[in-house]
Amino acid sequence: MKTLIIATHPSLETSVVNKRWVEELKKYSKKYTVHELHKVYPDGNIDVEREQKLIESHGNLVLQFPVYWFNCPPLLKKWLDDVFLYGWAYGSKGDKLKNRKVALGVSAGIKNVDYSEDGRYHYTLEQVLRPFETTAIYCKADYRSFFAFYGTEFEPSASEIEKSTQDYLNFIDNM
Amino acid sequence: MKTLIIATHPSLETSVVNKRWVEELKKYSKKYTVHELHKVYPDGNIDVEREQKLIESHGNLVLQFPVYWFNCPPLLKKWLDDVFLYGWAYGSKGDKLKNRKVALGVSAGIKNVDYSEDGRYHYTLEQVLRPFETTAIYCKADYRSFFAFYGTEFEPSASEIEKSTQDYLNFIDNM
Repeated sequence: MKTLIIATHPSLETSVVNKRWVEELKKYSKKYTVHELHKVYPDGNIDVEREQKLIESHGNLVLQFPVYWFNCPPLLKKWLDDVFLYGWAYGSKGDKLKNRKVALGVSAGIKNVDYSEDGRYHYTLEQVLRPFETTAIYCKADYRSFFAFYGTEFEPSASEIEKSTQDYLNFIDNM
Repeated sequence: MKTLIIATHPSLETSVVNKRWVEELKKYSKKYTVHELHKVYPDGNIDVEREQKLIESHGNLVLQFPVYWFNCPPLLKKWLDDVFLYGWAYGSKGDKLKNRKVALGVSAGIKNVDYSEDGRYHYTLEQVLRPFETTAIYCKADYRSFFAFYGTEFEPSASEIEKSTQDYLNFIDNM
């Protein structure tokens, strides 16, 4: 089954990394479905049934977003709150995410070296992303960790972005 | 200076704990300003300048919310993204949160015992709330941790809620 990528970026057109990732993913429409939340729901009103059926008709699930304030964009949080419902995502009859491979694809403004326990911000990106990991655990999904690009605030080179794009697709293919 | 409480709950009227906390906080309007985000911004369009001036005219800052999917409601995340701007919250001239005491007041559906490293969901609430702690660190605020009520999904008694209300106000007064 195809992999579903929920790509959430409040301004994808001006993004450094996410735009390039989406562009590349779209070349392989037999392998991936790229679902751009801000494009599909510009008013933020999410069609819950549509989203649930979209997930059900796919295999692996990837949440792609830029890390702002050490967290996801608000629309992705709304999507989680709206779509991951009792009786669907969890509860005795809520098995739609059970054993489903779930991973994150994120870009971080901050450098890798600053995301460490003895770094400037005290915590690793893995630690910062615990809410998403814990959500997957709660839904009995098979959390496959995350792929990250670090340092978008520091003008990454075209070759760095290209390498990340290939690495990201490899990560998805092997998650 | 008064303490500003940013109270964010998508359905405060039907809430178990947050509603009671807000009700009690409002009794002491000389000590606290309760700013109910969903009431002030039902359409989600945040007046950034107003919010920044509100914070500037207060001392301590408390973010109050129910923990859904191990994270804050989407409107609070939008508020953080919109209000905590470069040049105001961070950057060489962004000092408006510097040394300001910041804390969280949260309700969690899950029981305390399940929020542990050997518990059902592997992580403590402290670990789950790292994005907010890290945001405070980034803005050089004085993060004063959080007050939590656990187990809202398990029909807490009126006396438990009352005790939490007094404990929460004590926490704020001593943060």
